[in-house]
Amino acid sequence: MNAAADRRIVVPQVAHFDTSLVLRSGAVLPAYDLVYEMHGTLNADASNAVLVCHALSGNHHIAGYHDPAEKKPGWWDNMIGPGKPVDTDRFCVIGVNNLGGCHGSTGPASIDPQTGQPWGSRFPMVTVEDWVAAQARLADRLGIHQFAAIMGGSLGGMQVLQWSIMHPERMRHCLVIAAAPGLTAQNIAFNDVARQAILTDPDFHGGDYYAHGTWPRRGLRLARMLGHITYLSDDVMGSKFGRLLRNGSFAYGYDVEFEIESYLRYQGDKFADAFDANTYLLMTKALDYFDPAHHVPGHSLSQALAPAKAGFLVISFTTDWRFAPERSREIVQALLVNERDVSYAEINSSHGHDAFLMPDPHYHALVGAYMNRISV
Amino acid sequence: MNAAADRRIVVPQVAHFDTSLVLRSGAVLPAYDLVYEMHGTLNADASNAVLVCHALSGNHHIAGYHDPAEKKPGWWDNMIGPGKPVDTDRFCVIGVNNLGGCHGSTGPASIDPQTGQPWGSRFPMVTVEDWVAAQARLADRLGIHQFAAIMGGSLGGMQVLQWSIMHPERMRHCLVIAAAPGLTAQNIAFNDVARQAILTDPDFHGGDYYAHGTWPRRGLRLARMLGHITYLSDDVMGSKFGRLLRNGSFAYGYDVEFEIESYLRYQGDKFADAFDANTYLLMTKALDYFDPAHHVPGHSLSQALAPAKAGFLVISFTTDWRFAPERSREIVQALLVNERDVSYAEINSSHGHDAFLMPDPHYHALVGAYMNRISV
Repeated sequence: MNAAADRRIVVPQVAHFDTSLVLRSGAVLPAYDLVYEMHGTLNADASNAVLVCHALSGNHHIAGYHDPAEKKPGWWDNMIGPGKPVDTDRFCVIGVNNLGGCHGSTGPASIDPQTGQPWGSRFPMVTVEDWVAAQARLADRLGIHQFAAIMGGSLGGMQVLQWSIMHPERMRHCLVIAAAPGLTAQNIAFNDVARQAILTDPDFHGGDYYAHGTWPRRGLRLARMLGHITYLSDDVMGSKFGRLLRNGSFAYGYDVEFEIESYLRYQGDKFADAFDANTYLLMTKALDYFDPAHHVPGHSLSQALAPAKAGFLVISFTTDWRFAPERSREIVQALLVNERDVSYAEINSSHGHDAFLMPDPHYHALVGAYMNRISV
Repeated sequence: MNAAADRRIVVPQVAHFDTSLVLRSGAVLPAYDLVYEMHGTLNADASNAVLVCHALSGNHHIAGYHDPAEKKPGWWDNMIGPGKPVDTDRFCVIGVNNLGGCHGSTGPASIDPQTGQPWGSRFPMVTVEDWVAAQARLADRLGIHQFAAIMGGSLGGMQVLQWSIMHPERMRHCLVIAAAPGLTAQNIAFNDVARQAILTDPDFHGGDYYAHGTWPRRGLRLARMLGHITYLSDDVMGSKFGRLLRNGSFAYGYDVEFEIESYLRYQGDKFADAFDANTYLLMTKALDYFDPAHHVPGHSLSQALAPAKAGFLVISFTTDWRFAPERSREIVQALLVNERDVSYAEINSSHGHDAFLMPDPHYHALVGAYMNRISV
């Protein structure tokens, strides 16, 4: 059987925007591109559109394959497709690469038309609010007035919350998965170590490494290694790697000795060659800045979420220590204060934060059941 | 009042050893120095000696001041001194800098007499077993056949366990504080990221930065920032720093914005100027290697601890997620299987792993009561 023949091919598209975007920081992006992909067919009144917001290192490639030879499908392929929890036989599911990204949307590696050089260090800081504003313009462009649902995990879930605040009429449902209403000091601390690794890499050149023909791969590699520790639970690291030695005995040197070292270094190396360091910095700052309660009197999350009108499905995972279940419960409580319609599930999983990307049957059944109840 | 006049001055001493030491790795250290300090007076039969083993970045300077102008006393000054939990009016308390250290004992920055150059990359890997072997020789030199107690926190607690296995007759009591019977995969993972930060710093030069006139401060700074995240609890970070902004509002740049960033970078900078990178690498490897159960049939911790004869006080701290209370309970269980005399306390503290260095009244009362029951 030729597996490639079964592969759903999806062709990414680019939307160009000429109207300038005033960012939260006050900086102005004069024009920009957003790359996106669509799975399923938009119905006549565009009432079956679902928007998927991506996390730190994600992108628009949410499912299917870009070409038959592609090694792996989009990052949420187990969730999105025909007959899957987010069923593309019913919904038209849209993935979009965020501003500042490095997968086709305008970002630090893009050419600044005003200079003919990559933006580099001059690319402005972007926030979750800015991403939502840009995504809303894309929705306008596609003729989508109201999404059936907007969904995302981790930083993606934060965008969903922000959508519900900024554009409460533009979605009927919100799926907020493995997210938090703002980073803790510990979360920010991990982000800052990752950023410092990149910023102090001699190959970073203040963000203008493109012009120097260098690549701050040391810093990016460290950032990713550190990230992976926070994505996995202590449990799953223990059961998967424990104290397993690569060669059965101690070598008394600095090469890989433990299997966990091998895993982390491999993940770091792979990422450092493929991801843009400036994008990584921007994404971590967007995480740090996200704090809807910060902008309302008394810093009350329920006050911040008061505009929201959608129905909500909030999901957390028991061993997620990056955005622990209690952070999801804060979101649920704030929504309940506002008498929103909220379903909440805490999924038993050993996979830590990464669980939101895993095909856990209970988790998928829950999302599937929720999505199937949405009329289009 | 002149506070300096009250300062207990302690003068470190150096013991030189000419007999070579065969290390666990098989490497041989032909000769070496150990720097140590003593608080209180050794009694006639040396039955009141207490040995304090230090943790990753610690050293022999456990209490008092080296000179009246010294800014801060030794690292465990709240625990050790006249009338303190470890009462130097009764005990003679000895701190020793471990082999591989950077505070006076022979380490990577020391001159290798065979070459006249710093050891650098040629300094052999040292293990907890090697430290205990070297400390035992120092005890011989000082005429101490049996310590009243051997105590330590974190990596120091691991040395105490190792003493109880290697030299069960040489101490009457063991105080094992905030320790673990071996690192988890997550612990090793954090260590490896820290090491990779140092090893990939262009100023590291394979460990021979002394000869290059460089200092891998970028790597060491990152390692220390990361370390601090694991020493503090999520709780205490939250209550101390939370999402506090340094200047009250977002600056949309990569300089310090959140107070937690300021704290971490300050800690990193301070450490990077003062500590030797090769020593940091060695200490993290000693942590990784420590696993007494690894060396016995069936990898049984109780089997590994079977030789121990001492009485034990094991202490953990509720919010310590580096070496969580359950790791201390593993030690306690293994000792109970061997029918050892064990006291165990889990101290309520918000300070995470660092709690073992803090003057918590309950913790100190407990150590004091235990020590006061030891006859000398």
